[in-house]
Amino acid sequence: MLLKKLKNKIHSEIPLTAFMNIDIKSCDKFHLLTTAPLSMNINDKGTGFAGSLSTITTISGWGLCWLLTQEMGFKNTSIVILKSDIRFTKPVTLDIDCLTKIPSSQDIEVLKNKLIKKGSGSLIIKSSISEDKNTCVSFEGVYVIKLI
Amino acid sequence: MLLKKLKNKIHSEIPLTAFMNIDIKSCDKFHLLTTAPLSMNINDKGTGFAGSLSTITTISGWGLCWLLTQEMGFKNTSIVILKSDIRFTKPVTLDIDCLTKIPSSQDIEVLKNKLIKKGSGSLIIKSSISEDKNTCVSFEGVYVIKLI
Repeated sequence: MLLKKLKNKIHSEIPLTAFMNIDIKSCDKFHLLTTAPLSMNINDKGTGFAGSLSTITTISGWGLCWLLTQEMGFKNTSIVILKSDIRFTKPVTLDIDCLTKIPSSQDIEVLKNKLIKKGSGSLIIKSSISEDKNTCVSFEGVYVIKLI
Repeated sequence: MLLKKLKNKIHSEIPLTAFMNIDIKSCDKFHLLTTAPLSMNINDKGTGFAGSLSTITTISGWGLCWLLTQEMGFKNTSIVILKSDIRFTKPVTLDIDCLTKIPSSQDIEVLKNKLIKKGSGSLIIKSSISEDKNTCVSFEGVYVIKLI
């Protein structure tokens, strides 16, 4: 339900995510899985375009922050990315599967306490895009969350 | 002429750049200027979407590598980004102007010699997006160029 709400939110508010056809597939206690078809996201070599790969990792980290804070009961938040590092180790040749790691329960608890006490907090989010168990893209982003 | 060719190339081969309406505006001895309207590139807050800002900086660095190697006379190249770091210091509230710094003549000369001798070389490319002389986005990317 919350995943569908997140997909609708990003597609309606961020046109690029709708064009890329980003889907919010599933979320368990380990990962958020987001996907995008290769067809809309190819480069001149017919593999995944670095801009698309940056975008799906960036919005997946953002989406995970949104999901976590929604689950904490904070309905109105402003979430922004402060910085990110990305490594492109292998070309992406198939439809894009992006796995975003759920932060540790300790990190989530620290964030929750900061939001309660200060009204703002931050999270470091890591994600990766792999094919046949080989990592193609590694992403790390720092996100700041504020209650509004 | 080469700028127009670059724009046509990316728009026809990389669908995301056409959707974002990225333009290759000008290039002097200091900077390559690329632009994109805010309208197609907004986020949930009505400011520049981090994915779009990552994408325009990424493709501008790629485009600059393409322009430099075309000018060197290398018509057939494969250019890939290896890694990038990006910092988002202020929201982008206007149409996006991305300034990509031309590498030093020494760095360009080193690349040219490597391409001649080894058939491959790399460049570190820096770019920024500013408004009213305030930097909103700072990007640094490492690109690998191979002759094919």
